[in-house]
This record gives sequence, structure tokens and C-alpha cells, in this order.
Amino acid sequence: MAVGEFELIEEYFRQGGAALGVTLGIGDDCALLDIPAGRQLAVSMDTLVGGIHFPKNADPELIAERALRVNLSDLAAMGAEPLWFTLGLTLPEADKLWIKSFSQGLFRVANEYNITLVGGDTTKGPLAMTIQVHGAVEPDKALLRSGAEAGDLIFTTGCVGDGAGALAVIKQELEVGKSAFNYFMQHYYRPEPQVSAGCLLAGLASSAIDISDGLMADLGHICTESGVGAELKLERLPLSDPLKKLVPREKAFEWALAGGDDYQLCFTVPKRQLPRLEQLTDQHKFEAHLVGEMVQGSGIACFHNGEFVAVDSHGYQHF
Amino acid sequence: MAVGEFELIEEYFRQGGAALGVTLGIGDDCALLDIPAGRQLAVSMDTLVGGIHFPKNADPELIAERALRVNLSDLAAMGAEPLWFTLGLTLPEADKLWIKSFSQGLFRVANEYNITLVGGDTTKGPLAMTIQVHGAVEPDKALLRSGAEAGDLIFTTGCVGDGAGALAVIKQELEVGKSAFNYFMQHYYRPEPQVSAGCLLAGLASSAIDISDGLMADLGHICTESGVGAELKLERLPLSDPLKKLVPREKAFEWALAGGDDYQLCFTVPKRQLPRLEQLTDQHKFEAHLVGEMVQGSGIACFHNGEFVAVDSHGYQHF
Repeated sequence: MAVGEFELIEEYFRQGGAALGVTLGIGDDCALLDIPAGRQLAVSMDTLVGGIHFPKNADPELIAERALRVNLSDLAAMGAEPLWFTLGLTLPEADKLWIKSFSQGLFRVANEYNITLVGGDTTKGPLAMTIQVHGAVEPDKALLRSGAEAGDLIFTTGCVGDGAGALAVIKQELEVGKSAFNYFMQHYYRPEPQVSAGCLLAGLASSAIDISDGLMADLGHICTESGVGAELKLERLPLSDPLKKLVPREKAFEWALAGGDDYQLCFTVPKRQLPRLEQLTDQHKFEAHLVGEMVQGSGIACFHNGEFVAVDSHGYQHF
Repeated sequence: MAVGEFELIEEYFRQGGAALGVTLGIGDDCALLDIPAGRQLAVSMDTLVGGIHFPKNADPELIAERALRVNLSDLAAMGAEPLWFTLGLTLPEADKLWIKSFSQGLFRVANEYNITLVGGDTTKGPLAMTIQVHGAVEPDKALLRSGAEAGDLIFTTGCVGDGAGALAVIKQELEVGKSAFNYFMQHYYRPEPQVSAGCLLAGLASSAIDISDGLMADLGHICTESGVGAELKLERLPLSDPLKKLVPREKAFEWALAGGDDYQLCFTVPKRQLPRLEQLTDQHKFEAHLVGEMVQGSGIACFHNGEFVAVDSHGYQHF
């Protein structure tokens, strides 16, 4: 079913109604946008390729959900409030049913996180999508990778290792029951970007990153950019019950450390800020699991109940 | 030659030095950007796919040039001043020579148009690139498609039809001499986005669009969005000498009207603004070729020396 680009945009990608700061949305050479007064613009772009980042025959509704959620995770990691996104969508053919389903998933997430589609491009070619998210953050409050200091405590906002577990389940490397299968599929396609945690941590955490390439790799970026090292306590890593049931403890640690696609935040907090952090977690604003401490030096050392453990530090490598 | 994503970014895509409004560029979860005070943000995204929008074996330096130039053309069409861009680059393999050459072409254009790379994503997959450009424009001065009125005169900033001519030459549908070959190759890979013309026309022209899908299709968008019609005088269409030598006049008209990839601006000017426009063209700020007039009604009627001519109005269809 071949239809024109403009028709597709009209039919499936124009949202009604006015949105914050959008003077002009889809339909001209550019979108025209107003940043809230006194805020900085935070932008991040991610490309997902069919057959590489998701199975080509996956449900388009789920692909869309995952693509936007993964991008929102980068805004979360910056402590930025979501505003707008753009979508570059490349499809082998203009399959209306596929596009309809894709747009439903996309707008479900967009509405959930209050982010507006303002432009993009649809082209013919191998299945892929590039999303750019735009958010607002107060100057000097953005969560950088470079702000951690020795003595700061390291936290994650939730369980790690489920991303790697989900991939093993999807690839059918492990047999699981229906409930575990659903849990991991849900995690894989509908990860929960920690947007509200990120916004609350802005100005409180000394650094943050979202765990997309694996805890070791991503915490490693904080170490490098901050010029400090880190010590992780493996027994403290938050592991989900389905993951603990799925594989032996050692494998779960491996996935928690070197897997990817967790989309929790890893963040550091100076000890003097702990009362504020505890206040937020006591109010159930978000979870904060203490997993280690930043130290003088460089690199990450892992300990299990006080004993040093050698761990392969490679996260997911893009090439 | 397989290298990691981070290494590639470090080596080829980090530019030194501070850039206007860039608090944080490549290397964190988001870039942090400051819009110049009192300006609106204009954004546009384009995807180019290998084998669809350019030959897969084309010189990577030229692919990069074309990709960024084509995107800058959208800022030009809005009357926006270029600020920043992001790049989503998908490659079948991490070929360092290819990437080096690509980045050289990219930064040559970036420097020429004073636009800074602030982020993006590199992934493995079929050759494609998505670029988003960001520019600044004064509120109420942006060049929309919707501002034309009956009686406004229609102009182009330069020759039309060369894009279609170039495509025919590249596809070897036509034999040409070396000088004409070079002319069309130059036009195809190094189109000149009319950025300074666009900025000067902001607040003067009543509407504008860049000619990417063909004059009929793009002027058609102005007609639709403005709720008026247009009359074109074919004998006034500016055709390049190489194009006139390449094909018979009728074919040249066809390409000028229904071809694409010209990347000139098509803009409309209220008659009362003509003195200001003439002042700018007299000062050689840019070219303005009068090609027709907006009229009551809808759609585009073409005339050749006063005689009505039926023209296939389809520009390039993306699907």
C-alpha cells in the first residue's frame, strides 16, 4: 500500500491541540519553538536500527514505545524536563497498518511523559528510526557526568541486569515461564525512563548517567569525566526476582555489571546531601539503591562481601 | 577495521574550541544549549539513506557535504541563523578512512556556515544519516509557508532544474562533457543553501520554502498553507546554461517544475515590499528571479508567453 509522505504525516503524526512553547509544529520547513524563560535546552539523539537494536518483525507499537522511552532516559540522566521530540523514520515500504500501530505506541509514551512531536522526516529505506528529544533544565542544575568527587556515594534508581536478561529471553537462549517472559518483554520494550527522578535529582546529585551500555561502562564514563575511581559492592546490586530466578547469582551479577538496556539512572550524591535524598525516597518519589562509593584514582573495583572480584568491564560495544 | 563508538566520536567528531551558546557539547547524555536572548529556536530534521538519496559508493566527503547543506537549506527557508546540529550516523562497519573523510566534508560545511556539531549517535546498520539543524530567528519574523496573499510576487533565489539535471547525469542517462559533468556533480553534492538570503528575507518576504521536492510541489505547499493559488510564467524560470545545453527547453521546464534537489528558495513578496527587495538585490546580497504571482483560488497554473500550459504537478514523492 503506497501512500505519499505528506499524507502519512497528516494522517498519523499530527497531534491536535497546542503544546507548551510550540509556535509552529509539523508542516513547515522548520518547527518554531520557545524555550521556557531562563532555562537551558538539553538535547539528545538516538538511532535504533531494525535487526540490530530490535527484531525487524517486532510489534511496531512496541518498537515506537521503546524508541521514545530510551531517548527520554537521556533527558532523565540530565535532570531535564521533557518538552519536544523529532522523529526520523525510515521504512522499507509505506505500510499504513504498521505506521498506524507505530504512531499509537509513540503517542501513548509521548502523552505519558508530556512530550510533543514537533517535526521529523519519513523516508524509504531499511527499517530504522532516529529520535531527538529536547528538554529544559535550570542552568547549573543539569546532571553532568563530570561532577562526581571521591567520597560521593553511588546509587541506582532500580534493578540492574534485567536488560541483559530480557535480551537472552528474546533471543530464546533461556526457557522461561509465561509470567517471567512477560516481565522481561515488558522491560525490554517498555523500560521506564526515570524522568521524574532525574528532575528531582537536578541540583542534588553530583553526577548521573542512564544505564544503557551496562553499569560498569556507564559508571566508567562518570569516573573518566570526573577524574575519580569507583568501588562497587556486588552484594548490594539490586536484582529483580525474575532475574534471580532466571539465572545463577554469578550470571546475574555479570549481566547487572556488563549488560545494557537497563535505563535506570546511576547517580552519585555527596554525603552531605544524604538527608535530602532520604527525604525524597521516604516520600516514595523514587528509589535509590546504594551500590558503592567514588574513590580517589581511576577505574572501577568490584567487591563481593568485602572480597575483591575481577569483572570483565566491557559494556555493550556499538561496533 | 573495527573500533569502538566512543573512540570514533573522540577522534573524528569532537571539534575544539567554544561555540556560541554551547554549555556542553558532545560527550554527556545530552548537549546543553542556550538560545540567544529573545530568539525562537527553529529545528529541522532530514534523513538521507544510502542507495536511495545518494549512491552507496559515493565519496563520503561529498555525502557529508550534501547532507549538511540540504539540512541548512531548511533553516534558510525559515529565515533562521544556523547555530547547532546533531548527527545520527549509521554505518555497515566502522571504516576509519570512510569516517575520517566524512568528518572532513562535514566540518568544512559546518565551518562555512558557522554551525556547531553538539551531539548525535553512531550505530551499526545500513548506511544512512539523520541530521537535525537548530537555528535562531526573531519571533514573528520567521518565513512561514502560510503567509502568502493574492497579489504577492513569486521569486526564486537562483536556477531551478539543475537538481533533476544532476540526477540524470549521475544516473548516466545523459552523456555530458567534463565541464558540464563537474557542474552538475558540484550542484548535486555541494548545493548552496540560501542561508544569508533567508536571514535577509526574514520579516520582508510573506512566505518561503526551499525547493527540495520541485518548484511545483514546494510552491504548492505555500498555496495550500496560505489558502491561495499561483500563476507561473515559464519563460521567466531561471535556467542555468549547462541545463539549457543538456536538454531541450521543454525538458528543462519539466525538470525546473517537477524535479527536485534545487535547494534555492521560492519566496513571495508583497508588492509594497519590492523597493526593499530591489535594494538588497542591487547590493548583490542575493538573487531574486521573478517567476510569477500569487492569485485568488487554489493550485498552480503555468503560462508560457501568455499561453496556458498543462504541467504534471507531481514533485518527487518520498514513497
